[in-house]
Amino acid sequence: MMKKSYAKLEPRTQRGMKTKQKLLDAAEIVFGEKGFHQASIVDITQQAKVSMGTFYTYFESKEDIFRELVMSMQKNMRKAIKIGTQGITDRIELEREGFRIFFQFLQKHRYLYRLFRQAEFVDVELHRSYFETFSRGYISGLQDSMEKGEIRAYNPELLAYCFMGIMDYVGMKWVLWEQQEVTDEFIDELVCFIKNGIGKP
Amino acid sequence: MMKKSYAKLEPRTQRGMKTKQKLLDAAEIVFGEKGFHQASIVDITQQAKVSMGTFYTYFESKEDIFRELVMSMQKNMRKAIKIGTQGITDRIELEREGFRIFFQFLQKHRYLYRLFRQAEFVDVELHRSYFETFSRGYISGLQDSMEKGEIRAYNPELLAYCFMGIMDYVGMKWVLWEQQEVTDEFIDELVCFIKNGIGKP
Repeated sequence: MMKKSYAKLEPRTQRGMKTKQKLLDAAEIVFGEKGFHQASIVDITQQAKVSMGTFYTYFESKEDIFRELVMSMQKNMRKAIKIGTQGITDRIELEREGFRIFFQFLQKHRYLYRLFRQAEFVDVELHRSYFETFSRGYISGLQDSMEKGEIRAYNPELLAYCFMGIMDYVGMKWVLWEQQEVTDEFIDELVCFIKNGIGKP
Repeated sequence: MMKKSYAKLEPRTQRGMKTKQKLLDAAEIVFGEKGFHQASIVDITQQAKVSMGTFYTYFESKEDIFRELVMSMQKNMRKAIKIGTQGITDRIELEREGFRIFFQFLQKHRYLYRLFRQAEFVDVELHRSYFETFSRGYISGLQDSMEKGEIRAYNPELLAYCFMGIMDYVGMKWVLWEQQEVTDEFIDELVCFIKNGIGKP
């Protein structure tokens, strides 16, 4: 189990923020390609083309940058979904756009799954909190739609985990393995099952 | 990447099979608790209470026993589902029993997910082949039901991955995290969404 302290300060300059982001981008590739245990800080600084000293300005350890990377990817993903679904009120449309944005995010961040699968072995709480944070917004959204009578009434938590599982597996199979474009037809086919499952008869 | 040879022979005696199984059971605990990279062959032989020589009678390496463990768990899981759903022809009933048996298997093999998540880093083909093997039977079953007109027509592959994702996430949340008993009410609630999604209106 690793230390949970966050001793390092956030960069105060634009340049500092850029350097820190460069390190996080490099870590995404290095951890994704080599895996957490095989990867070293040297691999990351070489990939980012910064010095070892610069690394330690922003991060305490390999665990530290891994944790920050996982948290920042999660944050960016939720932000992308939030921005992309702004103004949509219809639940089925929200699901459609949510799936599309997630798949597009995955296309750009092909190591996302590999990173999250490793998280369980680096920090079990980090791993679980990812799912719990993501599900929280989902659950309250589904609950709202149920209360308004827009969709059938189910256990909203159960439904949220069903949808997250679908998102995960469909993304793995078609985005990562088949490397398919996320077409409207593909999303329509997926949403059709969901619509029948939750839509009012 | 590890060697893919299978030089070791299968045990020829009942006692040999028992010893080999003891090593696999020990490996399930050791890899599950420590993770593949932290675990050693010594950990496994100590857990199994057998000698190092005995280990090498049945396995070539840590990678070898890991691979055999993952494959045997997968085989046992599919066998449990096959036996438990024998004689059931109705698709919704098949889904209900399939989910129940999977959750019960997971209750008995709490490291299942941790082992499969590690598989990606030990042998990427092993990881992918697990999903592809599991989906193959699922797809053909769904296709049959669609052709018979028992359920709505979807892309059967897409549907199979949706169901596998649901199985995975619901198992993770309620069996592993919440450590809930898999009650009929719980399964009913889950199957209700699936039934509405695939059942004929």
